[in-house]
Amino acid sequence: MHIVDLIIKKRDRYELTTDEIQEFVAAFTRGDVPDYQAAAFAMAVLLNGMSGRETTDLTLAMAHSGDTLDLTGVVDVALDKHSTGGVGDKTTLVVEPVVAACGLPVGKMSGRGLGFSGGTLDKMESIPGYRTDLTTEEFLKQLKEVGLVLTGQTGDLAPADGKLYALRDVTGTVPSLPLIASSIMSKKIAAGAQRIVLDVKVGVGAFMETEEAARALAETMVEIGRLAGRKTVALLSDMNQPLGVAVGNALEVREAIETLQGGGPADFREHALEVAAHLLLLGEAAPDLAGARQLAEAALSDGRAWTKFRALVAAQGGDVSYVDDPEKLPRAAQIETVAAPRAGVLAACNARVIGETSVMMGAGRLTKGQPIDHAVGIEVHAKVGDRLEAGTALFTLHAHNEDTLAEARARVLSACEWSDSAVARLPLFYGVVD
Amino acid sequence: MHIVDLIIKKRDRYELTTDEIQEFVAAFTRGDVPDYQAAAFAMAVLLNGMSGRETTDLTLAMAHSGDTLDLTGVVDVALDKHSTGGVGDKTTLVVEPVVAACGLPVGKMSGRGLGFSGGTLDKMESIPGYRTDLTTEEFLKQLKEVGLVLTGQTGDLAPADGKLYALRDVTGTVPSLPLIASSIMSKKIAAGAQRIVLDVKVGVGAFMETEEAARALAETMVEIGRLAGRKTVALLSDMNQPLGVAVGNALEVREAIETLQGGGPADFREHALEVAAHLLLLGEAAPDLAGARQLAEAALSDGRAWTKFRALVAAQGGDVSYVDDPEKLPRAAQIETVAAPRAGVLAACNARVIGETSVMMGAGRLTKGQPIDHAVGIEVHAKVGDRLEAGTALFTLHAHNEDTLAEARARVLSACEWSDSAVARLPLFYGVVD
Repeated sequence: MHIVDLIIKKRDRYELTTDEIQEFVAAFTRGDVPDYQAAAFAMAVLLNGMSGRETTDLTLAMAHSGDTLDLTGVVDVALDKHSTGGVGDKTTLVVEPVVAACGLPVGKMSGRGLGFSGGTLDKMESIPGYRTDLTTEEFLKQLKEVGLVLTGQTGDLAPADGKLYALRDVTGTVPSLPLIASSIMSKKIAAGAQRIVLDVKVGVGAFMETEEAARALAETMVEIGRLAGRKTVALLSDMNQPLGVAVGNALEVREAIETLQGGGPADFREHALEVAAHLLLLGEAAPDLAGARQLAEAALSDGRAWTKFRALVAAQGGDVSYVDDPEKLPRAAQIETVAAPRAGVLAACNARVIGETSVMMGAGRLTKGQPIDHAVGIEVHAKVGDRLEAGTALFTLHAHNEDTLAEARARVLSACEWSDSAVARLPLFYGVVD
Repeated sequence: MHIVDLIIKKRDRYELTTDEIQEFVAAFTRGDVPDYQAAAFAMAVLLNGMSGRETTDLTLAMAHSGDTLDLTGVVDVALDKHSTGGVGDKTTLVVEPVVAACGLPVGKMSGRGLGFSGGTLDKMESIPGYRTDLTTEEFLKQLKEVGLVLTGQTGDLAPADGKLYALRDVTGTVPSLPLIASSIMSKKIAAGAQRIVLDVKVGVGAFMETEEAARALAETMVEIGRLAGRKTVALLSDMNQPLGVAVGNALEVREAIETLQGGGPADFREHALEVAAHLLLLGEAAPDLAGARQLAEAALSDGRAWTKFRALVAAQGGDVSYVDDPEKLPRAAQIETVAAPRAGVLAACNARVIGETSVMMGAGRLTKGQPIDHAVGIEVHAKVGDRLEAGTALFTLHAHNEDTLAEARARVLSACEWSDSAVARLPLFYGVVD
């Protein structure tokens, strides 16, 4: 079959066969499909969709387009967790130590931040010495010995996905459910995941702004998991306002440490415990969700999760003195509190605006490879629904210099909406898809 | 505006502005839009369509992407005619001399055949010496002095169209109404046409197989003409069976000469007179279509059209002795009659099968640049609705060798369907769009 015939088939709304999809991905990976054909194909998929079967075939073909990790000799059940990206989302830093502390080893490959979304690797690199470039051998050894790994991608996993994503980014073909879902799931499957918890963010600070869109993505990914034999559960969680208090790399590490030590913001702690419980349930550490939740709470409260996190940092070369004394973590030159400009109820604190402001301050990047400033960021001290007096501390800005501080001050205030009457609190979760 | 935003706008079904379309075409022509972005854009246009205004903007932007011909100093009204391509369609060879003989100069740039469709340049090149590569200066001089030109494209007309068409061909984005219509009309406008007659073919031997599809294309092109200030009329004409008798280059030239001399097949003569009449009416040579038709018939019957054709051949370096004595034109080595295999009424003579058979025999090409054999081809002696006795001459095959002759024999018979009862004749025209 010629590639152009395959494009025409999708253009004309026919379903592609498994063989056709495998042949397309293989030829694309080899460089035998020119980018202009792949771009036309991606646009046809975006506009005409794909069946669950087609999407699963695409996922598996991309997952097997390069190296794949086989964890079966190292762990009983290869668990993985993926967040679709948000603002203040340091969930992985707490969830993975909790799960590992409960006896289920977790080896996770994370990414870097891009745009208003933060990235787990950037956060961990706030800790001097922490390595995010483990080799496959190091990954497997640490998973076996420590039971916890948190690094960048090892080996050449799902290269077809990387290549297709780069092309989608410049051809207006990013927001396609089958393409997004297969991109996420192909990387998880290539990394050896057998059971997966997906944290699908919903709201203005998320890729999926509506619950309907997030649910559709969650359902697509859960179906891929089912058809590909990888049991998958998706949580729909709020990203209209930032998660927790801290937004910015070192600030978020500090907040994760507080949480691992039994403190931390209530919303973040609750979110992390719920995600951890679903992972523990998938890993069969407990017979039901309530039992799994109890395990997670115990691991937090008795310090085992914190100990696990400390072991992780040490294993990957991080200077443990920095997590033992988070005051040593990078600190910004300018720290300033922004007060509530009026009395009233906080009606919105736009997560996207907060995220973009932190990027402007240097905490994130707009294009791949840009350096970031681990010290800077924003603390958000109020949640939607909180009633505040005028003058109450609303934000703490951690800036590199006066200029960004001044701009950040105006921007974070513009993220807020106010009401004189009561405003309903935002839910942490909108539902579970399994 | 970034090109990716323009792709996204079309992907999301918004209407592009005139400025956006002009910027896209200009950047694409300069080479500043990578093919993968143009391919994604073309697929979005194919699937989401374009308004008449957008299609006209695209047409004009492509028409002005390179050289443009200005005929206003040379002719009072720049007339042009375009056929969407068919089998046995030697209409231009008769129509243009008729119109020129009626006092309206016509300078036409034609193309070569590709696939089952023949091309006017290939036909004219059956005449030894005939040049199809006039320069712009030669084109203008001959138009002024002879009143008739029939050559290939001069200069770099509508390069954006050429580039986009090549890309559409390999990305499954050919069959898009706005893209087909703008491709045709941009070349006509770049060549200086002010009033245009379009011969839109309908049927199995045409690009548009149904009357509905052909009418939609005709309406789109007529609307472009109206919005671009180029009065345009489209005729919908039959291409279920070949037009006239001859299919093949020298055979078609011979048939055109017969027609110019007052003979020729009735269907072809009628088709050519009708197209000529519409051109004469557009050129205001007569107050109405009936009057224009009388002018055309007179130019054929009194020999003025033939004299004009002869002058054309001489002006472009062709050896006039070959048109004076068409027996001198290239002749195939093997000439064989194929008899009707049964008695009955001819119910179909599939123009596409006949066209493809002639290509197989060497009369056409499947890829650009392939050489062709001017001598070979097929004469089709019956029309749908004709009642034949078994053994009557049905086809005459003109082949290069025994092998292609044998294959052609089987193929042309497979193009025929038969009935024992009466079958309605096919109309020559399905309507006029203006």
